[in-house]
Amino acid sequence: MSRTVADKKITANPAGWNLASHVADLEASIIREILKISSQPGVISFAGGLPAPEMFPIEELKSAAEKVIDESQSSALQYSLTMGVPALREALAQRETEQGIDTKPDNILITSGSQQGISLASNAFVDPGDYIITEYPTYVGAILSFNFNRVKYAPVEMDNDGMLVDQLEDNIKKYKPKFIYTVSSFQNPTGISMSLERRKALVDIAIKYNVPIVEDNPYKDIRFAGEDVASLKELGGDIVISLGTFSKICAPGLRIAWVNAHESILRTFEKIKQGADMHSNTLTQLMINEFIRSGKIDDHIEKLKVNYGKKCQLMLDEMDKQFPSEFTWTHPEGGLFLWCELLESMSASELLPKAIEKKVAYVYGAPFFPDKKGDNTFRLNFSNASFENIVEGIKRLGEVFKDNMP
Amino acid sequence: MSRTVADKKITANPAGWNLASHVADLEASIIREILKISSQPGVISFAGGLPAPEMFPIEELKSAAEKVIDESQSSALQYSLTMGVPALREALAQRETEQGIDTKPDNILITSGSQQGISLASNAFVDPGDYIITEYPTYVGAILSFNFNRVKYAPVEMDNDGMLVDQLEDNIKKYKPKFIYTVSSFQNPTGISMSLERRKALVDIAIKYNVPIVEDNPYKDIRFAGEDVASLKELGGDIVISLGTFSKICAPGLRIAWVNAHESILRTFEKIKQGADMHSNTLTQLMINEFIRSGKIDDHIEKLKVNYGKKCQLMLDEMDKQFPSEFTWTHPEGGLFLWCELLESMSASELLPKAIEKKVAYVYGAPFFPDKKGDNTFRLNFSNASFENIVEGIKRLGEVFKDNMP
Repeated sequence: MSRTVADKKITANPAGWNLASHVADLEASIIREILKISSQPGVISFAGGLPAPEMFPIEELKSAAEKVIDESQSSALQYSLTMGVPALREALAQRETEQGIDTKPDNILITSGSQQGISLASNAFVDPGDYIITEYPTYVGAILSFNFNRVKYAPVEMDNDGMLVDQLEDNIKKYKPKFIYTVSSFQNPTGISMSLERRKALVDIAIKYNVPIVEDNPYKDIRFAGEDVASLKELGGDIVISLGTFSKICAPGLRIAWVNAHESILRTFEKIKQGADMHSNTLTQLMINEFIRSGKIDDHIEKLKVNYGKKCQLMLDEMDKQFPSEFTWTHPEGGLFLWCELLESMSASELLPKAIEKKVAYVYGAPFFPDKKGDNTFRLNFSNASFENIVEGIKRLGEVFKDNMP
Repeated sequence: MSRTVADKKITANPAGWNLASHVADLEASIIREILKISSQPGVISFAGGLPAPEMFPIEELKSAAEKVIDESQSSALQYSLTMGVPALREALAQRETEQGIDTKPDNILITSGSQQGISLASNAFVDPGDYIITEYPTYVGAILSFNFNRVKYAPVEMDNDGMLVDQLEDNIKKYKPKFIYTVSSFQNPTGISMSLERRKALVDIAIKYNVPIVEDNPYKDIRFAGEDVASLKELGGDIVISLGTFSKICAPGLRIAWVNAHESILRTFEKIKQGADMHSNTLTQLMINEFIRSGKIDDHIEKLKVNYGKKCQLMLDEMDKQFPSEFTWTHPEGGLFLWCELLESMSASELLPKAIEKKVAYVYGAPFFPDKKGDNTFRLNFSNASFENIVEGIKRLGEVFKDNMP
């Protein structure tokens, strides 16, 4: 070796590095763009999927942090098991069982947000070119995880009761999908919640063809209108891999969620998670465990439901007043989102810059469709903005739309 | 649909689900087994890679949790950016720059433990069947991540100065690897630290062939003997993707680590991370930021070095007294591990059950070799056990070995 590092004539060239072929297909999420927009001063953002900041149980979580560090000392800060902290897995198994899903701690795997649960399912099942079934439109973050594994999509359209099951059965026969991905309650992005009859039919078809259902259920506890409906997991048992999270009912920054599934599939998820991030945060798992066992979580959820229900109703009332009557939109009974259709000839992506000029933001619909169609649709989040900003923001949006009618 | 869910004659059959083909190759980590063994009552474990529990900065981290919740309120609990919390990225860029690596915040991506950094590198570069270069033996957790992407290994042997660079260059020419993975300082599992000359030669070769180096550097701050040596990142600049972590110098349960790399490759890592877990823990990122900015981290590292240096020396002294003189072992100048070779004809995996009978545990060496060879080697961790248990545990191990000499 006559050359030395000091000889800087030869330097690194990252542009010449040869990346994995699946990387070429990956697009950055519009979420990143959304969060940038949201943070511009003066912009009222209905774009992100952020919970109401004024509702976070700040003092309760501060006390929980103090308590678990005082009580668990070094073990609150030490490495822990890939499957999750045993006390939290036990608390969750009990909670799920109380909610109608017969669950043992061995059925629970703690994940770093439900995004990781989606990623684990995708990584466990999908070889490049395999089909999966999603709703049409579906959660944009799930599309990110699925695209990483180079899936092909066999999307199924929805009506106000959820996935159209005849189309579902046709797609299963035609495409032999690895799994069915559904946000069954108060769907992101549409706010639609699947009816009980539709859920039963979905489970029956899944069992008939032995196709697992990945039920992504982050919003189920936030029902502020209508009657409770059993989850797919409750109805379908082992055919369902169910994803739950504390992001919406406690705080997303703690990154604690869970998978409830048959032990055999969790063994596979566990092996993938070991290589992905070893285990989820020990401290915040213990904090959530404390929040559950203290019983404070249920009071908190009741308060959230009242707040989100009022915000949703206010947004709908203001939309009635301010939006062109030719537009249509969903009327959710829970969750964080509603979904709006412009006239067929209008483009929600082209109107977004005009909205931002008026200091208001939404997410246009195309990224929620695996084939990027649906450009006349957009999603509104009603949980994050204040009551005052909902009124003002919808007024601004109404002006943008009225000024740009074809 | 005439059948209903109540008709339970047809049920789910998870055993019939068709998993991704890469899943068939995945083996569970022995880490899981290790942690089970460690937790059996009365067993003195030198098996895990756990930091000293008595050294965790418990009160400092409790104060940090209180302070960041008081000051940041809801933003300590809210969703945050995939790249990481800006304040922590700035603190890290400054800290890296002070340590000789010219770094801007845009060069920093926060990860959920360094395990995620390894996983991101593997996912970004490796198509099934691609070669990568590792040390021989190498970190078992890295093998987990790499196997997920179905790599082929072109391992390079080490002497006491680290990777043999002639073998490295031969392997690069022959296998055209996607990257070179190295634990450059106080390697896991061997405790070997690469010499300055060897580092310079490695960087030169990497630049010559434009093969990126993934420098996994979790132990670099824990040098308790010998002189500081520049990191590969300091020597090589953009050719190096460097992984740092707070797991060993603060607390692993907080799951906060970072990648320091050229911006172009971080864009790819960011896209993969969005789909993997969206972002790392907001609260514990802010806690670590507070721990750095208060200056307490440097005092803490000084105390750790003294503690780990004493424990390592004690273990070496006791091994001199208790182990058969035919065995050889490394004499690390830092880190958490040392590495021992039995006689060629002996099997560390066959002796482990006998050790556990005597209530002492280690990790046998085979899982650290991509080809599972090296069955006459094992790894000892000296950071986790108390001084008293190091003396007692090495005595027990010495008895096991003396009783089982061929």
